[in-house]
Amino acid sequence: MILDDGGDATHWLLKKYPAMFNMVKGIVEESVTGVHRLYQLSKSGKLTVPAMNVNDSVTKTKFDNLYSCRESILDALKRTTDVMFGGKQVLICGYGEVGKGCSQALKGLGAIVSVTEIDPICALQACMDGFRVVKLEEVVRSIDVLITCTGNKNVVTRSHLDRLKNGCIVCNMGHSNTEIDVASLRTPELTWEKVRSQVEHIIWPDGKRIIMLAEGRLVNLSCSSVPSFVVSITATTQALALIELFNAPTGRYKQDVYLLPKKMDEYVASLHLPNFDAHLTELSDDQAKYLGLNKAGPFKPNYYRY
Amino acid sequence: MILDDGGDATHWLLKKYPAMFNMVKGIVEESVTGVHRLYQLSKSGKLTVPAMNVNDSVTKTKFDNLYSCRESILDALKRTTDVMFGGKQVLICGYGEVGKGCSQALKGLGAIVSVTEIDPICALQACMDGFRVVKLEEVVRSIDVLITCTGNKNVVTRSHLDRLKNGCIVCNMGHSNTEIDVASLRTPELTWEKVRSQVEHIIWPDGKRIIMLAEGRLVNLSCSSVPSFVVSITATTQALALIELFNAPTGRYKQDVYLLPKKMDEYVASLHLPNFDAHLTELSDDQAKYLGLNKAGPFKPNYYRY
Amino acid sequence: MILDDGGDATHWLLKKYPAMFNMVKGIVEESVTGVHRLYQLSKSGKLTVPAMNVNDSVTKTKFDNLYSCRESILDALKRTTDVMFGGKQVLICGYGEVGKGCSQALKGLGAIVSVTEIDPICALQACMDGFRVVKLEEVVRSIDVLITCTGNKNVVTRSHLDRLKNGCIVCNMGHSNTEIDVASLRTPELTWEKVRSQVEHIIWPDGKRIIMLAEGRLVNLSCSSVPSFVVSITATTQALALIELFNAPTGRYKQDVYLLPKKMDEYVASLHLPNFDAHLTELSDDQAKYLGLNKAGPFKPNYYRY
Amino acid sequence: MILDDGGDATHWLLKKYPAMFNMVKGIVEESVTGVHRLYQLSKSGKLTVPAMNVNDSVTKTKFDNLYSCRESILDALKRTTDVMFGGKQVLICGYGEVGKGCSQALKGLGAIVSVTEIDPICALQACMDGFRVVKLEEVVRSIDVLITCTGNKNVVTRSHLDRLKNGCIVCNMGHSNTEIDVASLRTPELTWEKVRSQVEHIIWPDGKRIIMLAEGRLVNLSCSSVPSFVVSITATTQALALIELFNAPTGRYKQDVYLLPKKMDEYVASLHLPNFDAHLTELSDDQAKYLGLNKAGPFKPNYYRY
Repeated sequence: MILDDGGDATHWLLKKYPAMFNMVKGIVEESVTGVHRLYQLSKSGKLTVPAMNVNDSVTKTKFDNLYSCRESILDALKRTTDVMFGGKQVLICGYGEVGKGCSQALKGLGAIVSVTEIDPICALQACMDGFRVVKLEEVVRSIDVLITCTGNKNVVTRSHLDRLKNGCIVCNMGHSNTEIDVASLRTPELTWEKVRSQVEHIIWPDGKRIIMLAEGRLVNLSCSSVPSFVVSITATTQALALIELFNAPTGRYKQDVYLLPKKMDEYVASLHLPNFDAHLTELSDDQAKYLGLNKAGPFKPNYYRY
Repeated sequence: MILDDGGDATHWLLKKYPAMFNMVKGIVEESVTGVHRLYQLSKSGKLTVPAMNVNDSVTKTKFDNLYSCRESILDALKRTTDVMFGGKQVLICGYGEVGKGCSQALKGLGAIVSVTEIDPICALQACMDGFRVVKLEEVVRSIDVLITCTGNKNVVTRSHLDRLKNGCIVCNMGHSNTEIDVASLRTPELTWEKVRSQVEHIIWPDGKRIIMLAEGRLVNLSCSSVPSFVVSITATTQALALIELFNAPTGRYKQDVYLLPKKMDEYVASLHLPNFDAHLTELSDDQAKYLGLNKAGPFKPNYYRY
Repeated sequence: MILDDGGDATHWLLKKYPAMFNMVKGIVEESVTGVHRLYQLSKSGKLTVPAMNVNDSVTKTKFDNLYSCRESILDALKRTTDVMFGGKQVLICGYGEVGKGCSQALKGLGAIVSVTEIDPICALQACMDGFRVVKLEEVVRSIDVLITCTGNKNVVTRSHLDRLKNGCIVCNMGHSNTEIDVASLRTPELTWEKVRSQVEHIIWPDGKRIIMLAEGRLVNLSCSSVPSFVVSITATTQALALIELFNAPTGRYKQDVYLLPKKMDEYVASLHLPNFDAHLTELSDDQAKYLGLNKAGPFKPNYYRY
Repeated sequence: MILDDGGDATHWLLKKYPAMFNMVKGIVEESVTGVHRLYQLSKSGKLTVPAMNVNDSVTKTKFDNLYSCRESILDALKRTTDVMFGGKQVLICGYGEVGKGCSQALKGLGAIVSVTEIDPICALQACMDGFRVVKLEEVVRSIDVLITCTGNKNVVTRSHLDRLKNGCIVCNMGHSNTEIDVASLRTPELTWEKVRSQVEHIIWPDGKRIIMLAEGRLVNLSCSSVPSFVVSITATTQALALIELFNAPTGRYKQDVYLLPKKMDEYVASLHLPNFDAHLTELSDDQAKYLGLNKAGPFKPNYYRY
């Protein structure tokens, strides 16, 4: 079996030892990128073993993204810059789970947060949650902090960086290091000054400085730490997915990419509830029948959004 | 075509005029109950025309449930009781979209909110959002307000109601009028006293009173009003679904229940953004290619949870 | 003794029956205006009896203003207009206790709130609490809701009202009916249309409408109700002030205006704690000595701000 | 002139060089303790020069306490323990400015916060802000994090520490190192294990551990940093107080302790507004007259609480 994070092990085995790859009982993949690569393999007919996409399980998504990033954005900014959040104008590019977490945390501490989005549904959510939805161009000259969490590339270009105001903090909470075009800042007229681990001042000829964190890499990994509780959720999910693929009767999983069965997602959650002294209510027989549910779950249809 | 809310028109036509039912070009259904009945028809092979479940479109779900109930719970409680929210101990049964909305609103106004849940995933969300997850039995004697939003029946029984403290407000934000067992209160030893439209005091022999709103029916409908913005979202979604079913080339929709195509869900959202002066960012060609997306959407996989 | 609200009884007695006025044992005054008039009497040497300013007691200030208005602004807007708060752009003029309450409530429900202020300290508080501090002129064309809570007059003039956008809601949470220059709207080219109790549309020749609540009078009184809990706090404070003035040994209070003794303020608070099942911690002898406090209070110096 | 923080310089000069002390033009003191000592000197008639209490200026109080601690509690806990805040049960002892800041921040990040108080007014504020007011005894066995901010001593005793649950984090945001009776933990049966700078595990014979930060000293100083913005506010206030005492005409300040004149407090605030691009509204002549205010301030009576 393969427990992968990014798809490199999967692709290495497939390329180097295709025979052995075909004998793999199952693949469990936990990253966005790895999952993307699995779906591509599947499309092109090269995925010859069952694979489980645990990246999109509910508990994993919410804990690795929404709940964990809600805290790590604060931690990363404080550890590196000691900035005061109150009253700061912050732009958050992308209002997915990570963007939602960052926005909520910073708003809760008195920052004035705006959001950019490409997806009208997420944009409408931002409105309802009390954030202005703007284009980066409109606010680039006035913001104090710029945070990317889009999963996209070149969201912040040199042209934007040129227009940021003196002292603006720039960081990436999204994926890999492509969201901010940091390479475009490696030009002779700009001076890079390392002021502390993971913190660089980039100085324009007129004296303007921006504060770049982790050279545009992920600050939640570079400048913060992952709480053990989040690690526990992720590891439990991976372990259960491995067990499921290993124990599943022949034919349950074919040569395709699967989401974690909802019942296991619920099981991961239930294992972590005692930590909060949370007490679940049980359905009576009568209620279960009324709802058409098994008393032990799963409790929701697959398309349920939580 | 049928535009239905609850499934009564659909079932009436099916029963009374089965021949005419078979000529229907499509059904658009917007309620939980109606959708449930459609899936049952489909399972039993009796659904002979395509149907669209708009109840589970993102915009409809969030606006009719999360965002709208977040406001209507406050409105319903104020209009009927003038209760002050600050410091009140509130129990919310059910942490789905409606429960999430109610909890957030009441917490925001200084109430101390606890939650009951049957689903461990929703329970873990409640923990992360700062709510204690308890059983009704544990807090029944201390709460000031009890709100049901479970979609279930007999969540609050006579035995619970007997133990509520004097002056407790009881109301239902869930579905139909089954969540609170109001019928169990129609016994000779209890006195019902109507104090105002939609507000009744139920008086125990020892003088204890509870304040029952709308006789256990939905307070968001009985004691509040639906903002025109929410009506606009819902009506737009229904109209687009009707147009889609009407215009779809033969074969796109079979005799089954469909979710609204994501692109139309996004279109509904985009039509409502100008209301907030929200400005969407557009993908560059390069970015669209990088993400593997069409620049016009849809922007998310079907299983995305928002 | 005189229990006054606004100062009318006090001034009437002083003018009509000056002899009887001199025999009054004490005056308790609970309004801003009445207190203002008392201080003027005192300055001009006409205050011949002790008076107690209960308007500025902590519990009264916070409950009548901050906590009560936090809820009544929502109530007043919903009962009159059914407006959805999420995503709305709201301007709140004045960031005193009332403005703080209104801002917090509306932000909590997803509105995007800006603030105007004349006092740099309150303005800085608004920044730290996450609100943009602007001038009315800067945002007058884009806001959806305009709320005054300044205690000042003509904060919103005809010139502002002319520039508001179509559909803007205008209301007053401040004092009397002077904050919005409603009189300036009584001109022939504007049409007033009463759409419901306390709600008028004012229509410009080009068809633009603004929605004026309670003709510019206080919406927290006209369009909402005061929770019994707030009434209890206020009434208790007044009663204790009367008792104090009546029982005080000769010489404790002279011909001047006094704030409620802090110990009585604390006593009012302590009487209302059981309502929330709140349990106070008691100082040990050792701790009281360390802090230089009496174990029964008062617990704070007079200049403490809470 | 003396610029003091804690009163040591003042008392040293007074004791060692009393003649020189009498020639001092003024003292500016910024700490609670130093102010306390000044008031004691004044009471006992030993204060022979004017002193200014800048600790109780509005901007200093709010920024050093409320706004700064709101951020530093998060920073201190994250840097030392990487704890996840979501769902954690936190007890905050003391609901003064520091306690208010800590509670707000942790609640905003999904912690379930309770509060202890000795003062019924602050306790009622905690209720209205949505926190349960409890005694430490009632929750000592269930909390995950215990934070003191009382200004008192021995608020957390050995007896409490014995009953905390395994893994509980204990820290002090109050004053000096007396709030938690750390000395009582220096007994042979307990093992102290340093796990990292400022973090010690204290291990009971049954294996239970508590996590003590900074050995009970102030974590906002030991485990976090003070934002430069807060330093700027404080330093500006001190400098202005020195200038005021130096320039004041003879007789304005006598041998007593004074609060910073409100106009200077407002001036400090106004100097920091441009940082947030905040735009103050100016009173018209007519409005200033109506309010009985000078257009340049001060804008509030001395007893105003902000």
